[in-house]
Amino acid sequence: MAKNTNIRISFPAVCFVWQIAMIILFGVFIRYNEESDTRWIEHRRRKNISTNLENDFYYRYPSFQDVHVMIFVGFGFLMTFMKRYSFGGVGFNFLIAAFGIQWALLMQGWFHYLDENDGKIKIGVENLINADFCVAGCLIAYGACLGKVSPVQLMVLTLFGVTLFAVEEYIILELLHAKDPGGSMVIHTFGAYYGLTISWVLYRPMLSQSKHLQGSVYHSDVFAMIGTLFLWMYWPSFNSAIADHGDGQHRAVINTYLALAASVLTTFAISSISQKHGKLDMVHIQNATLAGGVAMGTASEFMITPYGSLIVGFCSGIISTLGYLFLTPFMEKTLKIQDTCGIHNLHAMPGVIGGIVGAITAASASESVYGKEGLINTFDFKEAVANRTVNIQGGYQAAGLFVAIAFGLVGGALVGGILKLPIWGDPADANCFDDEVYWEVPEDEDDNILSRHPNMNHARGMPDTYQRSHV
Amino acid sequence: MAKNTNIRISFPAVCFVWQIAMIILFGVFIRYNEESDTRWIEHRRRKNISTNLENDFYYRYPSFQDVHVMIFVGFGFLMTFMKRYSFGGVGFNFLIAAFGIQWALLMQGWFHYLDENDGKIKIGVENLINADFCVAGCLIAYGACLGKVSPVQLMVLTLFGVTLFAVEEYIILELLHAKDPGGSMVIHTFGAYYGLTISWVLYRPMLSQSKHLQGSVYHSDVFAMIGTLFLWMYWPSFNSAIADHGDGQHRAVINTYLALAASVLTTFAISSISQKHGKLDMVHIQNATLAGGVAMGTASEFMITPYGSLIVGFCSGIISTLGYLFLTPFMEKTLKIQDTCGIHNLHAMPGVIGGIVGAITAASASESVYGKEGLINTFDFKEAVANRTVNIQGGYQAAGLFVAIAFGLVGGALVGGILKLPIWGDPADANCFDDEVYWEVPEDEDDNILSRHPNMNHARGMPDTYQRSHV
Amino acid sequence: MAKNTNIRISFPAVCFVWQIAMIILFGVFIRYNEESDTRWIEHRRRKNISTNLENDFYYRYPSFQDVHVMIFVGFGFLMTFMKRYSFGGVGFNFLIAAFGIQWALLMQGWFHYLDENDGKIKIGVENLINADFCVAGCLIAYGACLGKVSPVQLMVLTLFGVTLFAVEEYIILELLHAKDPGGSMVIHTFGAYYGLTISWVLYRPMLSQSKHLQGSVYHSDVFAMIGTLFLWMYWPSFNSAIADHGDGQHRAVINTYLALAASVLTTFAISSISQKHGKLDMVHIQNATLAGGVAMGTASEFMITPYGSLIVGFCSGIISTLGYLFLTPFMEKTLKIQDTCGIHNLHAMPGVIGGIVGAITAASASESVYGKEGLINTFDFKEAVANRTVNIQGGYQAAGLFVAIAFGLVGGALVGGILKLPIWGDPADANCFDDEVYWEVPEDEDDNILSRHPNMNHARGMPDTYQRSHV
Repeated sequence: MAKNTNIRISFPAVCFVWQIAMIILFGVFIRYNEESDTRWIEHRRRKNISTNLENDFYYRYPSFQDVHVMIFVGFGFLMTFMKRYSFGGVGFNFLIAAFGIQWALLMQGWFHYLDENDGKIKIGVENLINADFCVAGCLIAYGACLGKVSPVQLMVLTLFGVTLFAVEEYIILELLHAKDPGGSMVIHTFGAYYGLTISWVLYRPMLSQSKHLQGSVYHSDVFAMIGTLFLWMYWPSFNSAIADHGDGQHRAVINTYLALAASVLTTFAISSISQKHGKLDMVHIQNATLAGGVAMGTASEFMITPYGSLIVGFCSGIISTLGYLFLTPFMEKTLKIQDTCGIHNLHAMPGVIGGIVGAITAASASESVYGKEGLINTFDFKEAVANRTVNIQGGYQAAGLFVAIAFGLVGGALVGGILKLPIWGDPADANCFDDEVYWEVPEDEDDNILSRHPNMNHARGMPDTYQRSHV
Repeated sequence: MAKNTNIRISFPAVCFVWQIAMIILFGVFIRYNEESDTRWIEHRRRKNISTNLENDFYYRYPSFQDVHVMIFVGFGFLMTFMKRYSFGGVGFNFLIAAFGIQWALLMQGWFHYLDENDGKIKIGVENLINADFCVAGCLIAYGACLGKVSPVQLMVLTLFGVTLFAVEEYIILELLHAKDPGGSMVIHTFGAYYGLTISWVLYRPMLSQSKHLQGSVYHSDVFAMIGTLFLWMYWPSFNSAIADHGDGQHRAVINTYLALAASVLTTFAISSISQKHGKLDMVHIQNATLAGGVAMGTASEFMITPYGSLIVGFCSGIISTLGYLFLTPFMEKTLKIQDTCGIHNLHAMPGVIGGIVGAITAASASESVYGKEGLINTFDFKEAVANRTVNIQGGYQAAGLFVAIAFGLVGGALVGGILKLPIWGDPADANCFDDEVYWEVPEDEDDNILSRHPNMNHARGMPDTYQRSHV
Repeated sequence: MAKNTNIRISFPAVCFVWQIAMIILFGVFIRYNEESDTRWIEHRRRKNISTNLENDFYYRYPSFQDVHVMIFVGFGFLMTFMKRYSFGGVGFNFLIAAFGIQWALLMQGWFHYLDENDGKIKIGVENLINADFCVAGCLIAYGACLGKVSPVQLMVLTLFGVTLFAVEEYIILELLHAKDPGGSMVIHTFGAYYGLTISWVLYRPMLSQSKHLQGSVYHSDVFAMIGTLFLWMYWPSFNSAIADHGDGQHRAVINTYLALAASVLTTFAISSISQKHGKLDMVHIQNATLAGGVAMGTASEFMITPYGSLIVGFCSGIISTLGYLFLTPFMEKTLKIQDTCGIHNLHAMPGVIGGIVGAITAASASESVYGKEGLINTFDFKEAVANRTVNIQGGYQAAGLFVAIAFGLVGGALVGGILKLPIWGDPADANCFDDEVYWEVPEDEDDNILSRHPNMNHARGMPDTYQRSHV
């Protein structure tokens, strides 16, 4: 069953058309905000701002750069774990993130940052962070489809993913007024169910034909640890990047740091207990250690207490590792969901845990713990929601979780349907997880060694596999 | 001499019990400090703090993230250099750092941050930095034992290491009132002698049986350079992270930046001069280039002058490289100290140099150079030590160095004794430096290539070389 | 045609002599500036500075660390792409950057930071950033010579490169009063033409003898992506690190972020359209995706508008990729310029584009867009140039571009002539791109696997492939 994976026309066309569309839409809609405009000095005088340091840039730029590393190196290298799909893992991650952030600036801009006076979107460093966040949802979805889709499909997945994200985010954060600074619901839950549903629609019954390429080799597992560690280390920045100035960012960092530390220990424990001789499995270490960060996304700013954060990390590390052990095989066999990176275990379940933890923590907040002003600041009980109680807030938090899941499932089904059309140049089942489909792959390590002794190198002109089949 | 390396019960048990203990102790003792608590707004009003930027978070968070990268990626990847112990290098580093930071928050909290009013430890970003620092001592110690101990032993090493660190740090910084912002004494000297003594107690006479695995391969050396470079680049943050606000952090960065630059040049020079044809040795480049950062840890905040920093880096690069050339083989043969990563050259000697440099620089400080207020600020000549002279300070700095060495030696002997018990699942001499003991290792690169042609892959069950001899 | 590549005397001698010279010159000339001196507290009082945060350290340190990562990990790992020159790529990059930053502090100090009162250079965090910038020019030049020069030659290249840079920068920024915060002209254009001219002078007619080593292998391409991504992610910090406090840094980040995103899409598109089946080429992805950052270096602070930034990235991604496809082979064949990393495509052309974009954007600036004060601040129309118009500024920007090119060409020809002397220990044409010339290289991966079964390992002395054919 040969498939046409030639994307020489379609892929460049999509890139060019969409990039030109971005330029036009940016020309019509996007401008600098008053903190990134040369008129900032006038703005400062008008608002009586005493120092340049009060420019939001200085509050958020270090966190932005950390988030940026998570998106491009963290997600990218986490997806290099397969023996022959490292180019596709880190390369396509790069591509769709670079496209997605542009489209996200527009989509999120229309919903959140539109200046009513002139109909323009005014951007600053917070928009860059939010664009990175938005694209994270699509990268999570890519994790479920890794190795099985074409770059054209990924561009489509990202276009719709960002669009759905912006709507879903608007409903959860603005209409429901739920809090979700690290995106347990908005990013992780939505992204994971979006990707899993797409993967379910695109089910490949004969995927076992490329099973031999789905594993890792020694070095590719080490590459993936680069991704894991940059995600793990910078996750405190992720969960605090758009938190409130001052104590909000400070507390989000502490909570995330602790949750992550706890999930490392439980991941190692469950991984060891599940294998013969107690040997550890790199798949668990690369992924489930991060579950604490995902699960702390909603409640990161809340007064969940340091030991509360440890408990969240403790539980999510266990659940995530158990997911890799039992749920992923079950889902593949029974539910026909092929989840290459196990995003259900790393993002869906910990994301849902995060949403639930957020709802419970919000509902149990009190003035005695938060202080009167602290409670108002933390939950933004101002203006339209000035009279909201913490119990009601808890309910809205829970509602937000359902919105995220619903958008993921429905959106994934729709986009999956589109991606099932036989026009996107996706690989045949036997050619999944193989960079040779979409990349010029250099000669193998072993050819390389042969080539260092040119006098023995009589067979260099022959194609790679041909040569080998005659040994 | 087969050894039982099955840790399927003991290792998960240790992880679970200790993580649960952490949760309980955090529940009893640890709370947010006033800068990470929602009542920060009340605190600001009470203390008349005009802006959220005065929250310590904004002074220290960028440095914290840099230190965090050094701990997890820097130390972790520096230890991936061996051909078949990269999983253990980066993975166990991850494990013990994640455990150690929790225990460090408690131990250091009890000694330094206990709120007398309510008996609670109040934490903020400075505590997170200090916890990372504390754990660095244990990771240094791990460097001497790399490849020769079980993860259970590492957990024990870390538990006691953090405990000893907190006591030693309390004596040096609080009782002796010595300065050591980058931890030449507190972190590097202590950590190195702690690890070396443990390694001496655990001496393995037949370690040559796994000599063939102790070297590197081409790619593993490149992985290790990731660790080297992230340590090198972020070391200015390490030495300035908890320095005084303003000029203190600023000066510590400059001094460290210069010392590191100088040690690169002398390392390359000595490495080249020591080999046939002047060829460079990756072991030196990966390690001794960092000696300048270690040696600048104590004096980083002092007015050591830019050229003084260069001299410190110059000397420590030379001494460290000479250590790799002559001292490590000598120590292994004569002193029976097997030091896998050569921490004696990278941490012990440069750490001692750093302590001595700190003592001399302190003793030679003067009001004419520092200014009257500057001298008081830099050495904290306030309250109980308001009348201390710089000469006396120099003496106390030197005393601090001896405390660090003593804690390393005595602590290492005790903990080494504990780790010698035959219950920890450590590997036999012939199985050291081999990930297969504690990790599920994927098939080899070469199997991989064969496995891409499944029809030829009839011999998968056979050992690698056997298979090849029949092709 | 054997060449003597023994550098056991010359290389250590150069390192020692130059490092000692640095120490002496630093001793005579370099001191802390008032923000990194212990007298900062007196300075604060004198200047009525209310908070430590106004120390420039807090404005610039996060960007400095990002730039530092670009220099050492970004440039370093980008140059690991070759199958057997990864040590030289990342290692020599490390060496010359560590030397260059010291010499740059002196050279730039004499031109820009000399305190007239005492004849000393006063340094702070901005100097560290500028030193990193300066060294970037030499690292770019190294890219053209990668694999073909000895470390001694690289030290010479760096000594002169930094010197030329400091003069050229002084002319462009101080005398012409051109703006170039991200160094499109000063860093990229100069560095590229400097390196290309050197490579042209050092033309190797028989370089095809080492052609088999000039390509990549699978893992080395993944290593190179580490370099690419850290350059790409931190480029907004590069272009904003020394921009104006407040809106200047903020706007530079936004512009660079957008230009980079756009060049990713056009790079992927052109790469795909140029290959059979639309397969992507890692060389393009590793390099041309960065062209947007280079091209935004001069105009980063200007009100180029977000869509203007996208257009700059769009065009430079295309031009850079086309350069790899057509110009590099043409230059090698016809112009006798062997450009190992294709710096003409990544730095020279996008740098020139950046200079032109800067000139045009400056010439078309207006008070209606910038505001009266904004225009003055952005272009520093103060003191001697208080009456300069934007049109004249545009002309001076263009003049700056020519100065950069001229310094590159003339300087490169001179230094190339020096490097052509037969005393530097450079490799023969057949030994280029091979780490074995200057490094102790560990045994191969395959020996490694064999060595794990020591009983079969009787043939270790024989060449690799020979051994295999007899097993």
